[in-house]
Formats: sequence, C-alpha cells, structure tokens
Amino acid sequence: MAYRETEKMRNRKAEARKRIIECTYGCVADGGFRSAQITRIAACAGVATGTIYRHFESKEDLFAEIFRIATQREVDKVAEALAAEDNAVSRLEVALRQFAERALRGPVMAWSLIAEPVDPKVEEERLKFRRAYAQLFEQAIRDGIKEGCLPDQDARQSSTCLVGAIAESLVGPLSPAQADTTEQAETNDHDPLVNSIICFCMQGLTGTRR
Amino acid sequence: MAYRETEKMRNRKAEARKRIIECTYGCVADGGFRSAQITRIAACAGVATGTIYRHFESKEDLFAEIFRIATQREVDKVAEALAAEDNAVSRLEVALRQFAERALRGPVMAWSLIAEPVDPKVEEERLKFRRAYAQLFEQAIRDGIKEGCLPDQDARQSSTCLVGAIAESLVGPLSPAQADTTEQAETNDHDPLVNSIICFCMQGLTGTRR
Repeated sequence: MAYRETEKMRNRKAEARKRIIECTYGCVADGGFRSAQITRIAACAGVATGTIYRHFESKEDLFAEIFRIATQREVDKVAEALAAEDNAVSRLEVALRQFAERALRGPVMAWSLIAEPVDPKVEEERLKFRRAYAQLFEQAIRDGIKEGCLPDQDARQSSTCLVGAIAESLVGPLSPAQADTTEQAETNDHDPLVNSIICFCMQGLTGTRR
Repeated sequence: MAYRETEKMRNRKAEARKRIIECTYGCVADGGFRSAQITRIAACAGVATGTIYRHFESKEDLFAEIFRIATQREVDKVAEALAAEDNAVSRLEVALRQFAERALRGPVMAWSLIAEPVDPKVEEERLKFRRAYAQLFEQAIRDGIKEGCLPDQDARQSSTCLVGAIAESLVGPLSPAQADTTEQAETNDHDPLVNSIICFCMQGLTGTRR
C-alpha cells in the first residue's frame, strides 16, 4: 500500500517547520547566526535535531531561509517608505533614515543580516537582496530626476552607492565588538550617527550642501 | 636523537609554500576562489595535496592568506595615492578613481576580493580590510577639514560611506554574471561608470555639485 500523507500529518509537519523557523529567528535576533546551533534550535522548537534536517537540507539552507525572511521585512519597509506621497528626495531621505534607525534599534539582527560572517549561501542571499534594495532606490532616483528635484545622474550607479554607503557605515556601529565599548548603545542616541550617514547619502545624490 | 630541521629542508619548505601561494593566487585571479580547488593548486605547485595541509590548516586558511596578500596590495595603493602632495580633496579623488580603475582592469580578482561568496574566514578578513581602507580615508578627510577644502563632518562615518559606496557600486559591474552580458567589458570603456561613482562619493564628501 502506497504511503499517503494524511492532512493531520501535513499540518503537524507545517507546524514543526514554523516552530523551527521561529526559534532560529529568535536565536539569530538574540546572538547572531553563530549562536544558532542546531541543538539549541531543536530544543527550543521541541523537535529532534533530525527533524530539522527533514525540513532543511542543511544548516546553511535554514540560515539562508531566515536571512530571506528577515531581510524581506526590511526591503518591504523601504518599499513602503519610497511609495509615500512626497517628492523623491524626501522619500529617499525617509527611507534611508528609517533603514538606519530600524537597524540600530535591532542591532544584533541587523549586524547578522548586514555583516556577520556566515557562509556562502547567506552571502549569495546578501548579494541578491542588496540588488533588491538598489532597484527600489534606483526607481526613486529616476522619479527624482524626472521631477527635477535630483540632478541628472546614472540612477543605477547612484542606487548602489546608496546601498553600500548606508550598509557599510552601519557595520561598525552595529558590530558586537563595538557595542561593548561604546556608550552609544546604552544611551540609544543614534541621531548624530544617522544624521551624518544621511547627510553623506543625500549630498551624494543631490550635490547640495546640507 | 631529536629531529632537527636542516637549512636545506627549511628552504625547500619555504619554496613549496611560496609556490602554493603563487598558484592559488593565479587560480583566484583566473576564476575566483570557487575555481581554486586543492587538487588544481597541488598540480600547479607540483606538490601533493597533503603538503598543502602541512602549510595551511585548511583551504579556508589558505584562502584567507591569499585574500590578505591581494587586498594588502590594494590598500597599499590607496595609501600611496593618499600620501601624494596635493590637497585632501584631490588626493581622495585620485585614490578612489585608482581603486575603481584597478578593480575594473582585474575584474575577476577584484570580484573575488570584494564580493565573491566564500567562507566565514574570508568574510572576517573582508571586515578587517574594509576597516583598513576606511582608516586611510578617515585621515585624509580629517586633513581636508583642517585644510578647509572639506566641510566639517564626522570623518569616521564619511570614510565608511566612501568604502561602502565604492565597493558596492563595483559589485554589479565586476560580477561574472554581468560580464557575460555587457559590452562594457569588451570595450573597456569604464570611464562613465567610474565617473559616476566618483561623482557620488565626492559630492557626498563636499556637498558641492560636480
């Protein structure tokens, strides 16, 4: 008799998968990918470690999935900010500021998404998602050039400059090494930091002193 | 009788290590880290694969060493350009332009150093070297503020924006995927690309339209 998956079994599998994802997400948000050991995830999700490998071919695949889920959330936030009713320069500024502020409010997860050395599968995802961010910015820059609020420029190149500038300038402030030594994390006063990143980015786009 | 390494043995070991490094470097320059298989390196260097592991604990350690050697060369070039006798704005522009042009002239190696998904050990090195680039730029920005040719700004944050902008904007043009579809690689006319990256970076620093 052929093996048939009952609906109840399908539901249980789906629930286990959901718990594995939630627990991994929680581990990464708490201590980065390096703290997300399979045994710890299994204990949290209440499954055997073998069960995890029935849902994900490898730890790398599970990590890549978590990366996609968490990063897509940030991409959606940027898309949302860029879709507001305002001129392109304002929309770009709001989107960049929001990205930086969200990262600094959740520094462990943001560091893991932006810079934590993980493995090639996560690196592949990073490249894809940076392209996704850049495409959103590119469209807004094109809008700005058409609206006349941005000078003519290679929108594609400028969009990648934006993505690089904002990501790289957050690496230091987000890094666990720095978090221990700076008071900034305690006071939560990220304004000067965010302002100087936004200033560089907007000057780069507009060529106008801020 | 205690084992004693003769000078001849030491020389032979040093030569083998040198050949292993040269061959790995050649492989990476030719087809990225992914093309640098241990068997290929061993054949090229004329050693047994086991010999490679006597010199480097793992392939990851060998790759990290190649990364350090190749990237230090670029860091030195940037340092050289920034040490020229000129005002800080010109020095920064020359250094950034040279960095981009050198990358586009050796796109396979540059892609491997900047963006190829490799492994966590190489990622660790990337973080360190990006810090090294940023520190060089930071000093030049401080000089520029003192000289009065740059407006007051957070030199540290601007330096990381520069590093991110130039690296990220080169990822697309350098990527093997794009090299196949664009004519740019064939014509070698990188001027518009380099100009738009430099324009964004210098505007970001100076707040002046170029």
